Amino acid sequence: MILCVSFILFQSVAQQKELTIEDSVLGYYKGLYPKSLSSLQWVKNTETYLQKTEKAYTITNAKTQQVVKTISLKELQEVFPKLQRLPYLKAVTKTYLRFTLNGGIVSYNYLTKKEENSIFYAANAVDIVLNDTASHIAYTLENNLYIASTSEKKIIITDITDKNIVSGQTMHRSEFGITGGIFWSPKGNYIAFYQKDETHVTNYPLVDVTTYPATLKNIKYPMAGQGSEQAKIGIYNLATGNLSYLKIDTTDEHYLTNLTWSPDEKNIFLAEINRGQNHVWFNRYDIKTGKKTATLFEEKEDTWAEPEHPATFLPNSNTDFLWFSERDGFMNLYHYTTEGKLVKQLTKFNWVVQEILGFDAKGKYVIIAGTGKDGREKHTFKVHIKTGKSTALTSVAGTHRTQLSTNGAYLIDSYSNITTPKIIQIITVKKGKKTKLFTAENPLEGYKLGTSEFVDLHTKNGITLHGRITKPANFDPSKKYPVLIYVYGGPHAQMVTNTWMAGASLWMPIFTANQDYIVFTLDNRGSKNRGFAFENVIHRNVGEHEMEDQLTGIDYLKSLPYVDASRMAVNGWSYGGFMSTSLMLRHPGVFTTAVAGGPVIDWKYYEVMYGERYMDTPQENPEGYKKAHVTNYIKNLKGKMLIIHGSVDPVVVPQHSMSLLQKSVKEGIQVDFFTYPMHEHNVRGRDRVHLMNKILDYIVLNNK
Amino acid sequence: MILCVSFILFQSVAQQKELTIEDSVLGYYKGLYPKSLSSLQWVKNTETYLQKTEKAYTITNAKTQQVVKTISLKELQEVFPKLQRLPYLKAVTKTYLRFTLNGGIVSYNYLTKKEENSIFYAANAVDIVLNDTASHIAYTLENNLYIASTSEKKIIITDITDKNIVSGQTMHRSEFGITGGIFWSPKGNYIAFYQKDETHVTNYPLVDVTTYPATLKNIKYPMAGQGSEQAKIGIYNLATGNLSYLKIDTTDEHYLTNLTWSPDEKNIFLAEINRGQNHVWFNRYDIKTGKKTATLFEEKEDTWAEPEHPATFLPNSNTDFLWFSERDGFMNLYHYTTEGKLVKQLTKFNWVVQEILGFDAKGKYVIIAGTGKDGREKHTFKVHIKTGKSTALTSVAGTHRTQLSTNGAYLIDSYSNITTPKIIQIITVKKGKKTKLFTAENPLEGYKLGTSEFVDLHTKNGITLHGRITKPANFDPSKKYPVLIYVYGGPHAQMVTNTWMAGASLWMPIFTANQDYIVFTLDNRGSKNRGFAFENVIHRNVGEHEMEDQLTGIDYLKSLPYVDASRMAVNGWSYGGFMSTSLMLRHPGVFTTAVAGGPVIDWKYYEVMYGERYMDTPQENPEGYKKAHVTNYIKNLKGKMLIIHGSVDPVVVPQHSMSLLQKSVKEGIQVDFFTYPMHEHNVRGRDRVHLMNKILDYIVLNNK
Repeated sequence: MILCVSFILFQSVAQQKELTIEDSVLGYYKGLYPKSLSSLQWVKNTETYLQKTEKAYTITNAKTQQVVKTISLKELQEVFPKLQRLPYLKAVTKTYLRFTLNGGIVSYNYLTKKEENSIFYAANAVDIVLNDTASHIAYTLENNLYIASTSEKKIIITDITDKNIVSGQTMHRSEFGITGGIFWSPKGNYIAFYQKDETHVTNYPLVDVTTYPATLKNIKYPMAGQGSEQAKIGIYNLATGNLSYLKIDTTDEHYLTNLTWSPDEKNIFLAEINRGQNHVWFNRYDIKTGKKTATLFEEKEDTWAEPEHPATFLPNSNTDFLWFSERDGFMNLYHYTTEGKLVKQLTKFNWVVQEILGFDAKGKYVIIAGTGKDGREKHTFKVHIKTGKSTALTSVAGTHRTQLSTNGAYLIDSYSNITTPKIIQIITVKKGKKTKLFTAENPLEGYKLGTSEFVDLHTKNGITLHGRITKPANFDPSKKYPVLIYVYGGPHAQMVTNTWMAGASLWMPIFTANQDYIVFTLDNRGSKNRGFAFENVIHRNVGEHEMEDQLTGIDYLKSLPYVDASRMAVNGWSYGGFMSTSLMLRHPGVFTTAVAGGPVIDWKYYEVMYGERYMDTPQENPEGYKKAHVTNYIKNLKGKMLIIHGSVDPVVVPQHSMSLLQKSVKEGIQVDFFTYPMHEHNVRGRDRVHLMNKILDYIVLNNK
Repeated sequence: MILCVSFILFQSVAQQKELTIEDSVLGYYKGLYPKSLSSLQWVKNTETYLQKTEKAYTITNAKTQQVVKTISLKELQEVFPKLQRLPYLKAVTKTYLRFTLNGGIVSYNYLTKKEENSIFYAANAVDIVLNDTASHIAYTLENNLYIASTSEKKIIITDITDKNIVSGQTMHRSEFGITGGIFWSPKGNYIAFYQKDETHVTNYPLVDVTTYPATLKNIKYPMAGQGSEQAKIGIYNLATGNLSYLKIDTTDEHYLTNLTWSPDEKNIFLAEINRGQNHVWFNRYDIKTGKKTATLFEEKEDTWAEPEHPATFLPNSNTDFLWFSERDGFMNLYHYTTEGKLVKQLTKFNWVVQEILGFDAKGKYVIIAGTGKDGREKHTFKVHIKTGKSTALTSVAGTHRTQLSTNGAYLIDSYSNITTPKIIQIITVKKGKKTKLFTAENPLEGYKLGTSEFVDLHTKNGITLHGRITKPANFDPSKKYPVLIYVYGGPHAQMVTNTWMAGASLWMPIFTANQDYIVFTLDNRGSKNRGFAFENVIHRNVGEHEMEDQLTGIDYLKSLPYVDASRMAVNGWSYGGFMSTSLMLRHPGVFTTAVAGGPVIDWKYYEVMYGERYMDTPQENPEGYKKAHVTNYIKNLKGKMLIIHGSVDPVVVPQHSMSLLQKSVKEGIQVDFFTYPMHEHNVRGRDRVHLMNKILDYIVLNNK
């Protein structure tokens, strides 16, 4: 094991105040997160950007840095007397501010200072999606889809009484990059929408204990290996009022994902994936006939294939698009035509491309974001579409979140790193010229904190693992400190990032500074932003490599003279609950104490879309399910283990923890348990203070 | 406070083995309860009694003490080859042994050594009731009632598809002395049966977490103040096959209880009680017309009226019967005629009559059981029906459970007291002559135990309260011992009795002997066998007087030089959970630790029949419900409190504990919790070992 410490202090000397748990939970409201510029966004089709100050929106020219417009709350209140404060904006154009008010999206013409073309929908509408021209809003009510427009008339798109048929909502449990079920066509003439048939999906019974008496709250929950949903794509033509469906047979419960309209609105492209999730067909459908007209390409993987991005058409092209694929081991971009011709692999990075932000003003470059060489970072690049040559637009090490102006000329870049709370700047796409807009102060100045450092460890195969160690406030290397391992460990997530505090949470100083703890976190194999091979080792065998890597972290900690190896605790939620319980029970003696929240205990109780991707079905992979089944190891418990579960957790359903408790009772093993009534997959809001106190108390009491 | 200790040791000097929690839970199987004579019972209409030995039943003449018959397992197996061991007997007559086998009740003629007149019913039948002549069996399947007889033909009595209409089962949640819903008429020509309509009773959702996925298990649960069941009495005429119903309007949800057939089978008597439970009508119905023909008498109480015994007709009389009533403040017997004439109050005890065992051979005496002067005891008496003169038939202080022979000449008396594990004797009713049959050895000989003593305390109004203190095994009065208060405290129950170990449970020595604890239990006002005034102080105000009395116990303990008043814990289940949480939260500082199982937290979540008797409805008594609502005091918690609940508790539904947890989270109070998956209103079977370990660990850890 080679050890490489990227040593960076994020905290200065003056250490006075102690952070409280309440501070850590309500930190945002208490100003303990780095300040930023509020509502910062580009005004559509301009080179100006909007930001919100206390009493006004200001619009500033990016080139001149002159404020070109101020729209005050007072001015808005003259038109909208009910407004209490500046609203959250849904859209900003050269003419309009659009925001939600009185059960509608209102449009304020800030040039004429009048309300124009506001659209009202049903009071309890959800999934509200405005089209690009802001002429119509699509929304859902219960299981059906509707349209509202500036006219009074509302259009019912689906009118299905069977509640198992759900239109216009997210689908496939929001896997595959899905965030919603309504897709306006580019010119707004059509809506495509997801429709799922959940007839074969079982109900999971949750109980609302706040009614008198308690009442049943069934959720649809497809468990691994059981019946799943069947998807459809509906297309509604606003001009004719015609509703049709793409002709796709989904009785095999395969997935319809990453819906993309062709710019000319004639075709829809879909990435279709088999239920086994190792085979993708990228298909073209003719919206007139609903028929598939071509399979542009297929992707197969031994482990899994997981498209998460729709196609992005090149500017002014109806034929050429960019496609994200991990087929070479890293998420890279591929240039295809709508006839299925691979023009070329556009990027060949051995790191992960994360998003396409748009194109430059002349359409020669695609602007992308990705990790760059360090998987803990995020940078923006321009890639020349013809040559594939790439140029970094962000430079300072760290995590840059950028917004591209509609015209492709400017970026707003908001970044942080382990030593930088937040800096916001404008970057020109052409020359990379930077203009600083904002520098946040250290919001934790004056607080007693620990010191976070990056740690690089290596697996026996030489793979680098990134960790973060946070040491006590008045660290003394001649002392021995107890350790808390905070773990997540699951796919699609990363705990150690080059961001402010290195991704550490505000509660960690409660341990490091107030309790003289070392807090350690490691992103094991399986976690994101390190490429496909790093991730897919978990296939059919979750927990195994993840634990191996966590134990590499433990070995590292044990090698440190200032670590008390007899006082190590582990804590995590969800996949981290699975990891915490697995580490505690499958490696007894390593930890004195484990606290697991909303843990996956038996993967067969987890859902089809996420669960089967990694584990296949229980029928296909009985050994893998058995090996990962936490209750099988309950007899090994050595030390104290607290299980916490939200009583109405719809993600990791309460059955997981209940099955562990039942086995522990049967085996005569004493496990501790707490349930947060009416909380879901975590404990949010003010109640989180209670949760963090419970975790802290339990670890401090037992890790000795 | 006057203190009076009835000091009795129940344990000798040789103290070696330590009882384990497993011993205490599985004590019955480990021979730690006093031995007895198995299946001891009178043979119907004889002066002989049956008992079961390892390989045979023997029948013995009570007078001569000669064994007159031996029926071996081997003999039975020749007729019933499937029998593995001697079966549990449903009935024993001069000719037959009747027992359940192969989905029927088989009748073995032990004179001819043949099977005769066996009756078979449906495999999944429940509520199986044999008539007196053993010619027919009534039973239920799901919500309907059936009859099977020696003929093959089964009779469907009710055939109702609406599952809300339930026939032949217990009703009114088995309050009012109800134990079943099938009432054969004396000669077996009719069946009367309960039918309840639960249309207006809400479902409470319980969840079965052992299925894949978890499934809903609704139970019907009428919560206080909400819709309740409507009762009917059905009558089925076996000769005509006619089914009719008594004409009673129960849309007011009043209760139909204590059904009594007239000996001539012409009338049915019912104690009807208003939903408010303070008014009883004892009504006579003509079974031909179904009409009420008389209200014999009414009983009204300011608090509640609670008949729990049917009428008992005098021998060979169709007109005179005995009625139990608390109208003079104690449960006494009243002699009535079927015309409603009160002949006289037969007994005028200032103690509680508990049951009528029958009549003597000549029908001049009624044989009853009751507490006698000491509410902790139980004795049998004969009462001269004409004069009311009573004579005790049992004499030794303690708890005598007696069976009267059908001819009224003999009693089998099985008794114990604080120093006596068990003695069984025959007593002649005429002269009280006693013949000892069995003396049990001390089953705990050789175990290290504590010493239980009775304690009498007094309320400020001079009411005597009975307590039990159990001291450590090697008690040293110069030491200071921690205390565990074990409490129930609710009506219809009594913890301190003059029985073996004074009613202490086998788990108590785990504390007293193994952990050097004092365990203390007190029967506060509200508990049973002390008369109506003692009980009904709790009306509309549960918890208040009960806690006051428990604190009298605490004051007593604090007055003892060997009690460490800074180390007191409290534990109880159900009403005892209500008491434990209430004591902990409403008298903070008294206890360091509370463990409450299946606690009633909010009385509005408890059920109509029991709950409204004591508390009226939440609408009628909002102050009382608010005052007793445990969550209102959660802010006061000082010390540690563990709440335990069976996950499918159908009696005190999980909502109770969940509401307390929710409030504790909201108020930032740390409470501990554990749920026993798939356990009901307590943790039974082997899993109880886990429960007792949890309770012990928690108390020992925190009561310091």
